[in-house]
Amino acid sequence: MKLLEERMLKDGNVLGKDILKVDSFLTHQVDFKLMKEIGKVLAEKYADRGITKVVTIEASGIAPAIYVAEELDVPMIFAKKHKNITMTEDILTAQVYSFTKQVSSTVSISAKFLTSKDRVLIIDDFLANGQAAKGLVDIISQAGAEVVGIGIVIEKSFQAGRQLLEDEGIEVTSLARIKNFNDGKLNFMEADA
Amino acid sequence: MKLLEERMLKDGNVLGKDILKVDSFLTHQVDFKLMKEIGKVLAEKYADRGITKVVTIEASGIAPAIYVAEELDVPMIFAKKHKNITMTEDILTAQVYSFTKQVSSTVSISAKFLTSKDRVLIIDDFLANGQAAKGLVDIISQAGAEVVGIGIVIEKSFQAGRQLLEDEGIEVTSLARIKNFNDGKLNFMEADA
Repeated sequence: MKLLEERMLKDGNVLGKDILKVDSFLTHQVDFKLMKEIGKVLAEKYADRGITKVVTIEASGIAPAIYVAEELDVPMIFAKKHKNITMTEDILTAQVYSFTKQVSSTVSISAKFLTSKDRVLIIDDFLANGQAAKGLVDIISQAGAEVVGIGIVIEKSFQAGRQLLEDEGIEVTSLARIKNFNDGKLNFMEADA
Repeated sequence: MKLLEERMLKDGNVLGKDILKVDSFLTHQVDFKLMKEIGKVLAEKYADRGITKVVTIEASGIAPAIYVAEELDVPMIFAKKHKNITMTEDILTAQVYSFTKQVSSTVSISAKFLTSKDRVLIIDDFLANGQAAKGLVDIISQAGAEVVGIGIVIEKSFQAGRQLLEDEGIEVTSLARIKNFNDGKLNFMEADA
C-alpha cells in the first residue's frame, strides 16, 4: 500500500536495529484518513470471502479493525489483554508473549461472540514474531470458527511471524513489509496489497 | 441519544448493583454503525468549538473516539495505560485509580502530540467515578492545552464523576445517563445529546 509506505518513510522512526516507531499515525496518535484507506484496501481483499467477524487485539489494532469491519459490514471484536471483573462468563484464552514489552499475558475473548459458523478476518497493526496473531488464531479455533485470513498493517518481514502463520495454512495480507532497517533506513519488500 | 438508550435496554446486562455490561456493542464486540452515530452526535455538539485533537484512553474509548475525530477532521490520540519500551521521549503522565479493576495505573501521552495551541475534546466510553477522565484532563493541562469538553457514551449519573469534572469547569456531554439500576433495571435521566 503505497500511501502507507510513504507515510512510514515520512513519519516513522527507526529505533535500534529492529523497532519502528509509528506513534504519530498508528500506535498512539491515529490518523483516521489513513485508517479508512487501510480499512478499504483490506476489506476489498476479503470482500468475497464470506467474513462474518473482524477480530483484533487491544489497543493499536482497534482503529484499523473498526474500519475494516465497517467496509465489510460486520461486527468487530477486540480481544482483551487483561481479565476484567465484568468478564464473568465463559471466556476463550491464549497465552501471548510480547517481545516488545517482554511480558507474557493472557489474551481472551468471550465465548459467546464466536461460533462454529463464523468466518473470521484477523486484523492487527504489527506482525513481527506472530505471537499475538497466533494467540488469536488459537482462540478462534477453540470456538470452532474459521480463520479466513490475517490482515496486517506493518509486517517486519525479517522476523518469524509470517512463516509461523503460513505454516498453519493461514493467508497473510500485509500492507507494508519491512525487509530490514539497514543503516537505520526502512527497506521494503513488495507488499500484499 | 435515543438509539443508544434503546440498545442499552436491549443488549446491556446489569450485574450486581452498579455494573452495566455492554460488551456486545461497545466494550468487547463493537457495533461500528452505533459508533458512527455516536461520532456524529458528539462531533455535531462540538463542531463550532475549534477542536484540534480528540483524546481518549485505551481500549474501549478508541472506537467511538476515532469516529468523533473523523467527523471533526482532526487526529485522535489514545492515552496509554502501560509504559512501552518504544516510548522513550518526554511523556506526560497521571495516576488513575480504576474502581472496576481495583488497581492504580499510570496513564500517559507523549508530550510531542499536545501543545499549548491545542483545543481538546476528550472522549470515553464510560463516566463513573471520573478518575480516568480526570487523569486525561491533568495530562492535557500539563501540556498547556485546553480541554474544551468531555464526550461520554454512558454516564453512571449516580456516581461522582460528572460533578468532579464540572467542579473543574469542564463541560460534560453524555449520550446516555443512568439514574440507577433499581430492581436490576436501567433507569435513565435526560441525556445531554
